[in-house]
Amino acid sequence: MAFKQNAAGEWTPATPQYALGEAFAAGIWNMGPGGSRFAPAMRPALSLEQTLSEMKAIGCTHVEFHDTEAEPADAETIMSAVRNSGLEVSMCTANLFKRGPEFANGNFGSPVAATRAESIRRTKDYIRTGIEIFDAKVYVYWNSSNGYGGPMQVNYKDLFQMTADGLNQVVAWMLEEYGSERALPIAIEPKPNEPVGWGVPADCGETLAIISLMDPKYRPFVGTNLETCHALMAGKRYAAEIGLAAAAGKVFYVHLNGGTGLKFDEDLAFGDNDFGVAVETLYTLQEIDYRNIVGIDVQPLNTDTPEQQSASIARSIRNFRRAQEVCKRIDSVELNALRSTADRAAVSEYFASVCAGVK
Amino acid sequence: MAFKQNAAGEWTPATPQYALGEAFAAGIWNMGPGGSRFAPAMRPALSLEQTLSEMKAIGCTHVEFHDTEAEPADAETIMSAVRNSGLEVSMCTANLFKRGPEFANGNFGSPVAATRAESIRRTKDYIRTGIEIFDAKVYVYWNSSNGYGGPMQVNYKDLFQMTADGLNQVVAWMLEEYGSERALPIAIEPKPNEPVGWGVPADCGETLAIISLMDPKYRPFVGTNLETCHALMAGKRYAAEIGLAAAAGKVFYVHLNGGTGLKFDEDLAFGDNDFGVAVETLYTLQEIDYRNIVGIDVQPLNTDTPEQQSASIARSIRNFRRAQEVCKRIDSVELNALRSTADRAAVSEYFASVCAGVK
Amino acid sequence: MAFKQNAAGEWTPATPQYALGEAFAAGIWNMGPGGSRFAPAMRPALSLEQTLSEMKAIGCTHVEFHDTEAEPADAETIMSAVRNSGLEVSMCTANLFKRGPEFANGNFGSPVAATRAESIRRTKDYIRTGIEIFDAKVYVYWNSSNGYGGPMQVNYKDLFQMTADGLNQVVAWMLEEYGSERALPIAIEPKPNEPVGWGVPADCGETLAIISLMDPKYRPFVGTNLETCHALMAGKRYAAEIGLAAAAGKVFYVHLNGGTGLKFDEDLAFGDNDFGVAVETLYTLQEIDYRNIVGIDVQPLNTDTPEQQSASIARSIRNFRRAQEVCKRIDSVELNALRSTADRAAVSEYFASVCAGVK
Amino acid sequence: MAFKQNAAGEWTPATPQYALGEAFAAGIWNMGPGGSRFAPAMRPALSLEQTLSEMKAIGCTHVEFHDTEAEPADAETIMSAVRNSGLEVSMCTANLFKRGPEFANGNFGSPVAATRAESIRRTKDYIRTGIEIFDAKVYVYWNSSNGYGGPMQVNYKDLFQMTADGLNQVVAWMLEEYGSERALPIAIEPKPNEPVGWGVPADCGETLAIISLMDPKYRPFVGTNLETCHALMAGKRYAAEIGLAAAAGKVFYVHLNGGTGLKFDEDLAFGDNDFGVAVETLYTLQEIDYRNIVGIDVQPLNTDTPEQQSASIARSIRNFRRAQEVCKRIDSVELNALRSTADRAAVSEYFASVCAGVK
Repeated sequence: MAFKQNAAGEWTPATPQYALGEAFAAGIWNMGPGGSRFAPAMRPALSLEQTLSEMKAIGCTHVEFHDTEAEPADAETIMSAVRNSGLEVSMCTANLFKRGPEFANGNFGSPVAATRAESIRRTKDYIRTGIEIFDAKVYVYWNSSNGYGGPMQVNYKDLFQMTADGLNQVVAWMLEEYGSERALPIAIEPKPNEPVGWGVPADCGETLAIISLMDPKYRPFVGTNLETCHALMAGKRYAAEIGLAAAAGKVFYVHLNGGTGLKFDEDLAFGDNDFGVAVETLYTLQEIDYRNIVGIDVQPLNTDTPEQQSASIARSIRNFRRAQEVCKRIDSVELNALRSTADRAAVSEYFASVCAGVK
Repeated sequence: MAFKQNAAGEWTPATPQYALGEAFAAGIWNMGPGGSRFAPAMRPALSLEQTLSEMKAIGCTHVEFHDTEAEPADAETIMSAVRNSGLEVSMCTANLFKRGPEFANGNFGSPVAATRAESIRRTKDYIRTGIEIFDAKVYVYWNSSNGYGGPMQVNYKDLFQMTADGLNQVVAWMLEEYGSERALPIAIEPKPNEPVGWGVPADCGETLAIISLMDPKYRPFVGTNLETCHALMAGKRYAAEIGLAAAAGKVFYVHLNGGTGLKFDEDLAFGDNDFGVAVETLYTLQEIDYRNIVGIDVQPLNTDTPEQQSASIARSIRNFRRAQEVCKRIDSVELNALRSTADRAAVSEYFASVCAGVK
Repeated sequence: MAFKQNAAGEWTPATPQYALGEAFAAGIWNMGPGGSRFAPAMRPALSLEQTLSEMKAIGCTHVEFHDTEAEPADAETIMSAVRNSGLEVSMCTANLFKRGPEFANGNFGSPVAATRAESIRRTKDYIRTGIEIFDAKVYVYWNSSNGYGGPMQVNYKDLFQMTADGLNQVVAWMLEEYGSERALPIAIEPKPNEPVGWGVPADCGETLAIISLMDPKYRPFVGTNLETCHALMAGKRYAAEIGLAAAAGKVFYVHLNGGTGLKFDEDLAFGDNDFGVAVETLYTLQEIDYRNIVGIDVQPLNTDTPEQQSASIARSIRNFRRAQEVCKRIDSVELNALRSTADRAAVSEYFASVCAGVK
Repeated sequence: MAFKQNAAGEWTPATPQYALGEAFAAGIWNMGPGGSRFAPAMRPALSLEQTLSEMKAIGCTHVEFHDTEAEPADAETIMSAVRNSGLEVSMCTANLFKRGPEFANGNFGSPVAATRAESIRRTKDYIRTGIEIFDAKVYVYWNSSNGYGGPMQVNYKDLFQMTADGLNQVVAWMLEEYGSERALPIAIEPKPNEPVGWGVPADCGETLAIISLMDPKYRPFVGTNLETCHALMAGKRYAAEIGLAAAAGKVFYVHLNGGTGLKFDEDLAFGDNDFGVAVETLYTLQEIDYRNIVGIDVQPLNTDTPEQQSASIARSIRNFRRAQEVCKRIDSVELNALRSTADRAAVSEYFASVCAGVK
């Protein structure tokens, strides 16, 4: 059962219930050769079995798939390998960005009708795979090429509205096909740029805005999957993005990683660069009582060797646990007392002191 | 009548109906000595009458006020001066930022209950002034100190929800006091930083997200007042912000000016720095059929002399008209054909060619 | 002859002397299938001959090569194809980034001695190819992976000094091998990030700073190749970067393209996004009397079809000519008069008016 | 004696020799009422004696002055108060930004000859005061309004060269007046924006580039005063800026504080926001063997009460000591071993572990 009705009769995700640190997922694409426009393949490719086995060994409980790595036609076979590895599938997502040139102009919000239709078709297909084969807990819609790269390229109003309309169509189909209880929570993952100059939605605010453009009866089935690095690329504080989504009841899933700011999508390990971001994230996840699986979405560093294929995932998990240790130093009563009088000087010092473990 | 019901029975602003270029407003604070942490007073202060007369002379039809420049107690007298000048009041806004240290920790979303209460009280007071004395067309809520300046300073979820709650209280009071038809449209003006490190709401997305956190029955009365420079400071394209607000039916008012990106709040003239932004803005305002007064919110440059007190406003208006001229070079049928096939190379060149007036 | 002595006996590049608009170069990598982490191959690959012929057809006079596209061993054969096409080689550069994992940690400034040595070896090799086979006009050193991706990864002082030392070694070898007159001008191309979080040197300032760390006798042989998009990614104004390099006598070459700011390396066409940047660039190139070949370094848009392989290059050249047309509207005497009294309001309006071609 | 000759006969600053943590300076402007365009005066003003006494009490050994707070004519009297307080003067600087409208267009690099002349005159005057009355250890030239705010406003080449020429004139006069040994080290403090859109020099690279444009015989007398927040506003890592200046032998002084990135000049306490920046800074200062007084340049938070006038300075000093404690957890041999093999995954985890104090 993926959705249930609350006391007010509203449908809300029937989220898995783990304590923080009990369940971690990583993307099957989070290990491997690397490579980009500016870097060659750095490491040998691994087999599905090798990757799953390594993930299990370093502490993952779940794995995530794009359809390009796990085509619907192969999903049964892949699911067997997952079961054999002792992992489960937490999330699946149709890859609308590396699929082919037909998605260069966007997906749900593309000005090209054929692109919109094909995006919806592929999304439905993979939601079906997620429900019927993977028993996934969440479906993620990542914006990828949805957006624009310069002035005047699109009608902005239409872009936002069509993106909402695409989601409407997907949810309508899903509810008809599976009913509310079996529906898979759809989590939008915003990103401000790359592959396009301006991705839509760019951040949590735009994501919630797009949800508010949807048909009210479909809104409950769509939420967010906020990623740390994407938030930093948008100039946002990640924990604040989580807080905003929480206020709207829309923290369906999270993707933790790291980044250094307004630049390319670095996908560093969680806790890299500014460990305080990891601490604040942990504290905020506690504050909102996040109980779902914790998704990690990272890449190996270019300097990682063939023996370090899983180094970024493993470091993320260890940093997550370090951040939990640091959070134990925080006395919430004391912190909230300082907050409630807006003694921001004292909060700042308290945070530095707690992070450093030095009085 | 400031709100009316549409065919579906929803309340929507009964916006003034001007052609673009017919009605311009400027802030009474848009002329004067200047001065900041890093610059002294540059020019002599002007009297209210001098300012209004100069605004009229350079082509403004309307003026905007903060309560700190036009206290409720003085509003009748000030309104006489406005009438004498031949101008009208388009917008008024309670200044919750320079009022005093009590607002250092925020306003509607402050963790300090007394600050929240005082913010609401002052807002109601000035809405009353706007309705009863100024006959204003819109009330603007600018976030100013609402937000936070570093990690852990606030509970983020509460911050967003309390900001929505403050708006709920204001609208509830306004409807009770004046009824829907006389209610003054409330336009939220987002800004990503300054005076605080992270202002809330930061941009159009967060603004619409906060509106979606409000009580559904109060949402129709709250929209946006998007400012060009604030959008650029947030790394957004201004025209896209307008497009997003338009999709939600929330372009209650606009504040045009200019800026150069992710830095301090420059408040340059509209069309300064990147004239293409002005052209795209004009085209988008045409596309969404914007008919309200066009607000200009600029500051004199530090280099502007005592004789150039109104130079930034006047330049903004002239650049607005230049952008209108450039828009006449755009064949919308041709442009939309290129857009609909996602021929972005052709759109980019079309835009450069049109902007330059060179085939 | 690539260097000559000026009246003071200093060696300065014996730059080709073209009027602006007479000579354009593009990179052989500026056409082709595209593809990145977030986009698949979009178009078919082209043969060398096809690419050269197309470049010639759209107005290029010169072509640029990485060693990975034109290995020293194949250089003679490639040079024949270039000659057949009617083009010349303007620039060549050893690709230290896609070559293999050995460059993941940097190049001249890498903490790993073997990487530094291999970088120097490959650079010498390709300078030799440039001089002996291509008759290139400039050799470009692009920082690529030189830098770091997070705190504490390197000793920063050593990083900068070793980068200068690597250049010292290359120049020392080149002078010994070819003498000053045949030496190939070495132009450093800075970039602030991607593939590493912080590239070194990041911008014109850091480039000149690194040159100032070199042995004084080798400094005259090293200058800059500033790229528009890289400058925008660093938050700099491109024309100002050119001006800084010009003050130091270091504008050895330029790479024109476009971008939208602090994000990934978009490599848009010159004049895309903000046409004013193109106009200001042209005016500044005139002001410093730039006479060398104009390098264009762009990528096809993801939406460009197989028929639009050269669209970005061709658009860049047409926008260059458009910017020249716009510059004819500028009366330098009038502009300089406004500048000399720091009437920045008037300059801003003059620029908007000139860009738009509307009084 | 402020300069001495090294073995090679080059003049280098005869820097005070303190262990890190022994000597702290703060600006006399670092306490007080606050206030800006977007915030009112928050706290009562303090007398000179109150400020000095409070600074002494919280651990400062030195104080810094602008000429606007300590006019040359009042310097003797002020110096008495400083002596009475038990402090010394570390730094003085002519305020070329709040002095009056005459500096709106820049200072050394202004296109207006009178502004350049007046900037040089005031600078000389205050260097004299620094040498003759304050016995200051360093004179700081902060760029302030030097730069430009939009396209075409200045001739960029001239701007950079004139800035270097102004420094030439100041040094020439100083050497003639006082000789090399009594000369006051001049430290340029770069800042990328505010009060102008693009400040010149913007960062360490541009600063060293401008020094390289100076007459070689005057260069030894000019170095850098790098500020943490200004570096973050420029998208740079502060420790890397220090490393670059160290490579050039130009770390004449430092200004520590904090900030959150590409936005307005926040002047937070050192260690605020990202405590890792403080740790890395300390480690780098150790690495380059910095022995001069440590300057703190911070502002009270807007939320700081009248009782918290010195909270930002005091927090900076305590965070400095916390960072020293954290640095004791770093085994340099171990760290350098990881660096030398470019095992960046291991360095990243080592740093997170050390910062958190969790294995």
